[in-house]
Amino acid sequence: MKQLTEHYLEDFAVGQTFGSGRFRIDGQRARAFAAEFDPQPFHLDETAARHSIFSIFGEMTASGWHTAAVTMRLLVETELKPAGGLVGAGLDECRWPRPVRPGDELRVECEVIEVRPSKSRPAQGLIKLRTTTLNQDDEAVLMYLVNMVVQRRKNIRQE
Amino acid sequence: MKQLTEHYLEDFAVGQTFGSGRFRIDGQRARAFAAEFDPQPFHLDETAARHSIFSIFGEMTASGWHTAAVTMRLLVETELKPAGGLVGAGLDECRWPRPVRPGDELRVECEVIEVRPSKSRPAQGLIKLRTTTLNQDDEAVLMYLVNMVVQRRKNIRQE
Repeated sequence: MKQLTEHYLEDFAVGQTFGSGRFRIDGQRARAFAAEFDPQPFHLDETAARHSIFSIFGEMTASGWHTAAVTMRLLVETELKPAGGLVGAGLDECRWPRPVRPGDELRVECEVIEVRPSKSRPAQGLIKLRTTTLNQDDEAVLMYLVNMVVQRRKNIRQE
Repeated sequence: MKQLTEHYLEDFAVGQTFGSGRFRIDGQRARAFAAEFDPQPFHLDETAARHSIFSIFGEMTASGWHTAAVTMRLLVETELKPAGGLVGAGLDECRWPRPVRPGDELRVECEVIEVRPSKSRPAQGLIKLRTTTLNQDDEAVLMYLVNMVVQRRKNIRQE
């Protein structure tokens, strides 16, 4: 059964914004993520972080990929809810302007900046979102543009 | 103590390539990652995946963010080894051209496509890498361009 809250291409318009709830970065979980996927001293250990030649670290920071994964979690929980799910076709201009530390509380804001039907697949379209992940001080910690594949409503009715 | 294998900006040149070992995608781990960070039915459940309106799925696929995280793990283990660690300044043109399924064996190939000193930070430079994650059939499953911050050798000697 389709959920009433699902959105089709025709439901999206340039300028719409969607915000998420908040997600607190747990230090132990951030270390476990880094141990599995980004095993570098400044993501694993306070002392190593303090001695990093990159002054942006200073104390332990979460892997940028942990921030990206948490951002996906927050996006899934927003009211974006494209029919069939959030399926990214690609990212551009992805930047991590500030580090994320244990205890930070992240949230996501995104804005629809483009809506277009697919030329090759008439049942689908693409929306482009500018996605910004912010910490508790409203500082951006991750930004990217993402193209998401969205179903067209017309096609669904023909099924 | 600095490891002898660490590379500084002056050690990198356009055209150099680096390859990784292999990493097998475990189905249970892929589901756990999705449950934590990308809880959508086609990443969690075979039956839901078969009924997805996105024909690319068909069977359960790993989250694209899991693929990205595994790619980071593989990059850390290559011979790239920039002094001070792998620190990405940003990604561009990130695409997931094919899904990743449990049992797939991934590896990474990357090529240096740009090497340049930083204008604002004389102790640092940037290298741009074209990074491709391939499955066991040598099909690309993730591609991106990444700018990495790399220390300059001269500065280290002044310390």
